[in-house]
Amino acid sequence: MTEAYYLKPVGIIREIDEKVRIEIYDEYRAALLGLDGFSHIYVLYWFHQNDTAENRRTLQVHPRKDTRNPLTGVFATHSPLRPNLIALTLCRILAIKGNQIEIADIDALDGSPVIDIKCYIPGEVSDTRVPGWV
Amino acid sequence: MTEAYYLKPVGIIREIDEKVRIEIYDEYRAALLGLDGFSHIYVLYWFHQNDTAENRRTLQVHPRKDTRNPLTGVFATHSPLRPNLIALTLCRILAIKGNQIEIADIDALDGSPVIDIKCYIPGEVSDTRVPGWV
Repeated sequence: MTEAYYLKPVGIIREIDEKVRIEIYDEYRAALLGLDGFSHIYVLYWFHQNDTAENRRTLQVHPRKDTRNPLTGVFATHSPLRPNLIALTLCRILAIKGNQIEIADIDALDGSPVIDIKCYIPGEVSDTRVPGWV
Repeated sequence: MTEAYYLKPVGIIREIDEKVRIEIYDEYRAALLGLDGFSHIYVLYWFHQNDTAENRRTLQVHPRKDTRNPLTGVFATHSPLRPNLIALTLCRILAIKGNQIEIADIDALDGSPVIDIKCYIPGEVSDTRVPGWV
């Protein structure tokens, strides 16, 4: 329970001229082989600007920072304040050029460290249910 | 690029009598408030049995350990060998009792450390494309 695991950044998110791209570091470039067969990826990155002990102790928030939304446990949100500061977003790939993946649909801060990328395989998710604040 | 980030386990996956449940540690229990409003969650856990330098250096694999599948970069797979040993699974919640979340549809090993839980919000994902090995 006290053991810790460490993450090394494998790339960085760059936002330039309203284009968003993931720049994978050279040493991890081989891990991109075959990614061009997919339309979408999960991008896992680190909320690096929130990496303080206090933020990591935050267990409940008002979703979307709107106090009209009920106080909610961070595991029931995608809040950038949470015990482990991992962000998860499903993104469409626009283009892959070398070690650069141009993506749509991410609201990460420029300079966010990327910690993993996983392919998106469409699956059957049925009978979904969400609370009112969503 | 050399900076590292630390993860602390927030719970553990338990498989008993073909039932799978996530046991959230007491100190993080408050983070579950409101989770019962959702039908599905993303579970992020650690491939703890693969945590060796060699496994973390593995950048290409044959998906599903089947050599008939083309050699593929780990970022284009969900391989348990990858630079950062994070597993990601979308699961249906069967029941929540106290700090225990009973779930369906996970193939994690008993004892896997849970590092994060995020609510699943259905979104529109269209025009998906995957390679032949999927």
